[in-house]
Amino acid sequence: MDIREALYTTRAMRRVKPDPIPMDVQARIMDAAVRAPSGGNTQNWRFMLVDDSEVIGKIAPLYRKAMAMLWETLYADRIAAAKADPDSEESKSMMRVQNSAQWLADNFEVVPLYLFGFTQHDTSGSSIYPALWNAQLAARAEGIGTSLTQVLAFFNDDVLSILGVPLDEGWNMAGCVSLGYPTGKWGIAARQPAHEVSFRNQWGSDVGFRTDTPLWP
Amino acid sequence: MDIREALYTTRAMRRVKPDPIPMDVQARIMDAAVRAPSGGNTQNWRFMLVDDSEVIGKIAPLYRKAMAMLWETLYADRIAAAKADPDSEESKSMMRVQNSAQWLADNFEVVPLYLFGFTQHDTSGSSIYPALWNAQLAARAEGIGTSLTQVLAFFNDDVLSILGVPLDEGWNMAGCVSLGYPTGKWGIAARQPAHEVSFRNQWGSDVGFRTDTPLWP
Repeated sequence: MDIREALYTTRAMRRVKPDPIPMDVQARIMDAAVRAPSGGNTQNWRFMLVDDSEVIGKIAPLYRKAMAMLWETLYADRIAAAKADPDSEESKSMMRVQNSAQWLADNFEVVPLYLFGFTQHDTSGSSIYPALWNAQLAARAEGIGTSLTQVLAFFNDDVLSILGVPLDEGWNMAGCVSLGYPTGKWGIAARQPAHEVSFRNQWGSDVGFRTDTPLWP
Repeated sequence: MDIREALYTTRAMRRVKPDPIPMDVQARIMDAAVRAPSGGNTQNWRFMLVDDSEVIGKIAPLYRKAMAMLWETLYADRIAAAKADPDSEESKSMMRVQNSAQWLADNFEVVPLYLFGFTQHDTSGSSIYPALWNAQLAARAEGIGTSLTQVLAFFNDDVLSILGVPLDEGWNMAGCVSLGYPTGKWGIAARQPAHEVSFRNQWGSDVGFRTDTPLWP
């Protein structure tokens, strides 16, 4: 797959089938993940692949609780605004995100594989997120849908306990990526155009190009 | 370019030529950057491309000071260890990183383009780092070398002032990517094998595959 196709069509794909992901595919995904750069090339990261239904079954209720908390706290205003004005683009985007994330909450046990990323002594996330994103791009090239969630941080200690993570070594759970063969179609994610969120040399100044429509394909 | 070639060969490439990067190439890089996912698809990011030699000239001495501080603080132990045992793989890696980063400090004004990433109300970095990494992967496909640096955070307020970033809107400078046509050759970055940093279902357990040599090409 061409790099630009991967960059343009790797978007949150939460709705997946229960079909397992073959071990050689998982190996290719993880081998690509660790090619990411890390500060000082220290590679202070660990990854955990979770495909044991017993382990997934312990995490599922925590994820459901965390999502319910998210809707009622961080997203409460956006959801209320979306309900008040359901036809705006922003409202539609919010409802799409909510429906998709709620699907994962309702079907957490359907997903065949989860990838957890851990980082040690890195509070910025500049090393672990490129690695997880590499895994998501490599998965896309294999026809596998992924999504990154961080809401399990609400129950950080419970999740670390379920996964057997040592508590005295400074490992921080940066996020959890769901992986599976998608039920839907791939497509280009709509975004606010690059030229509207980019400046040149000074904040607020014109960037010097326009990207009104996606530059791929 | 194939996605796997991009994932395997996009590494920190700091030594570059002064040749400018055409505007249409910059547009393609930024259009790919914004395809990255963000929490709740909020896209709370801004980017600044800096190619004005006057602006670069103001930032250069701060970068040089920041690197000098880094060697004397965070990296002091690793550098001392590398000098004491210069033949170990870890020492060689440390010296490579230091030589490369010091090249950028000594030649900050040679680099034709810098990309700054800013994020609002996102302390985890889970949205901005995939976007910056997308830019680096898209640049790789254009034959452009990049590297992410965060050391300018040492002089955060000075850099924000130089770039005209408003201080009252909660924008956080997540990092700075250098971009230019490389003087060296592309290659696969050596990494601790994925199976040595990955577990399955429980911390410390075998991941179920081996990746002794890179799975690409």
